[in-house]
Amino acid sequence: VKVQTFFSAAEAEASEMSGRTAVVIDVIRATSTIVEALANGARAIYPTVSTEEAIRLANSLGREDTLLCGERKGLKVEGFDLGNSPLEFSGDRVGDRRLVMTTTNGTRAFAAAQNAELVLVAAFLNLGAVVGRVAVLGGDLAIICAGKEGRFSLDDALCAGLLLRGLLEATEDGRHGPAVLNDASRAALSLTASFQLDVELLRRTSAGAALVEVGLGDDLLLCAQRDRHALVPEMTDRMIQVPRPGKA
Amino acid sequence: VKVQTFFSAAEAEASEMSGRTAVVIDVIRATSTIVEALANGARAIYPTVSTEEAIRLANSLGREDTLLCGERKGLKVEGFDLGNSPLEFSGDRVGDRRLVMTTTNGTRAFAAAQNAELVLVAAFLNLGAVVGRVAVLGGDLAIICAGKEGRFSLDDALCAGLLLRGLLEATEDGRHGPAVLNDASRAALSLTASFQLDVELLRRTSAGAALVEVGLGDDLLLCAQRDRHALVPEMTDRMIQVPRPGKA
Repeated sequence: VKVQTFFSAAEAEASEMSGRTAVVIDVIRATSTIVEALANGARAIYPTVSTEEAIRLANSLGREDTLLCGERKGLKVEGFDLGNSPLEFSGDRVGDRRLVMTTTNGTRAFAAAQNAELVLVAAFLNLGAVVGRVAVLGGDLAIICAGKEGRFSLDDALCAGLLLRGLLEATEDGRHGPAVLNDASRAALSLTASFQLDVELLRRTSAGAALVEVGLGDDLLLCAQRDRHALVPEMTDRMIQVPRPGKA
Repeated sequence: VKVQTFFSAAEAEASEMSGRTAVVIDVIRATSTIVEALANGARAIYPTVSTEEAIRLANSLGREDTLLCGERKGLKVEGFDLGNSPLEFSGDRVGDRRLVMTTTNGTRAFAAAQNAELVLVAAFLNLGAVVGRVAVLGGDLAIICAGKEGRFSLDDALCAGLLLRGLLEATEDGRHGPAVLNDASRAALSLTASFQLDVELLRRTSAGAALVEVGLGDDLLLCAQRDRHALVPEMTDRMIQVPRPGKA
C-alpha cells in the first residue's frame, strides 16, 4: 500500500490520482467548514476555484435554496451569503441548503484530487471517522494538504500526520500489507511527535496568524476540535456530500 | 530575524529574496557536488537551468579550461564531461577548471535564490561552516531546499533543520533578536528530533532511492558525510566560488 502525502495543492498532480483514494485537508479553513456545514444539515457543497464560476454555478443550481460562500484573503467575498468561517455555518443558516464555495487554497486541493477513485474530506473535526473509513479501504492513498499559497502549512501537515499515525495503528495487523510512505508522509508522521494539537498551535501557524490578523481568530477554537463530528464527506462529480447509509 | 524555509524550489519566489541571505540546499546531489568540487580545487561553478544554456556558456567561457557537467534523470547528459556524482569531481578532474553545471532540481533553486543579497551553498558536507557563517551575519534568512520535481524532499529538509538547529544554538545569546520561524522552518527543526543523518536514511529518501535505482547509490556515502569540508561557497552573478580570504 503506497501512501503519498503532498504538502500543498501545487505539489499534487491531478494526473497521478487515478485509481487511488485521495483525502483532502485544509484545516484553516475549507475542510473544517465543510465538515461543520454538513454536520449542521447542509445538503451538498460545490467547491469552485473562481468567484465567477461560483456565481454561475449558484445561478444554475437555483438561487432559492443555494448559498454563495467563500473568501478572498480570509474575508467574505462581497455580495456572497457566507464567508469561510465554520462558525457561520450553523443549522439555521445552512440546513437543507446547497452551498457553492470558493476558497483560496482549499478548492485548489479539490481540483487536484478530482481524478481519484474516491475523494474524502478531512479536518481535525472528523479525523477519527476518516481514519476508520480509510483503514477498511486498503489500496493506495494520496493525502493532499491544501497548504497556503502553494507552500507548506503546519496545520495541514500535522493533520496529515495524525491521520497517518491513526491509520498505521489501525492497520498494524498488516492486513493491507506494509505501507510504503513517501518523504512527505514520513515527515508528517514525525511532526506528531513534536507538535500537540491545540488552539495555541493553530494561532502560531502562518494560516492561523493571518486569520487572527483579520479578526477571525475565534474560528480556530472550532478548527482545533478533534473528533467533534463522526462524518466523512465524499466528493463525487465535484459535489461534496455525506454518503447516505446503504449507498457506500 | 525572520527565517523562512522553502521545501522546494517551486515554493520559493525569487521576488521575495531581495535584502536577505539565501542558503541553497540540494543534498542529493547538486550542492554536495559543488562543495566537493570546490574543495578539490575547481575555480568556479556556473549553474544553468537548461543543457542548451550550459553548452552556450561553456563555449563562451572557452572550452579549454571549462568542463560541462550535469544530469538528467540522475545520469550524465550525453556528450558532457561529467555527470553530477560528487565522486567524479576529484582534484585531477576539476582542479583549476571552471565547471558549467545543469541539474534537475538544484539549478532551479539557484535561480530562485539569485536576487538575494548573499547566496550561500549548503550540504551536510559543509554544514558546520555554513552555520558559523550565517550565525555572524544576522539579518533575514531564506533556506531554499531544492526538493524533488517541485516536491518535499526529506534529505534537504533534514539538512535545513540541522542548519536551523545549529543556528539557534549558536545565537542563543539572542544577539540578533528572537528568530521568527515560518511553518516550514518549525517543521524542519522538528525533523532533527526524529531522523538521524546516515547513509541508510539517504537511501530511503525518494531522491536517494532513485539514485540507487540507476546504480549511483555510492554517491550517498559521500553526501551523508557531515562537515567533511569547512568551506562556504557563495554565488555572485550566477557564478559560485569560495570567497578569497580578505574579500569577505
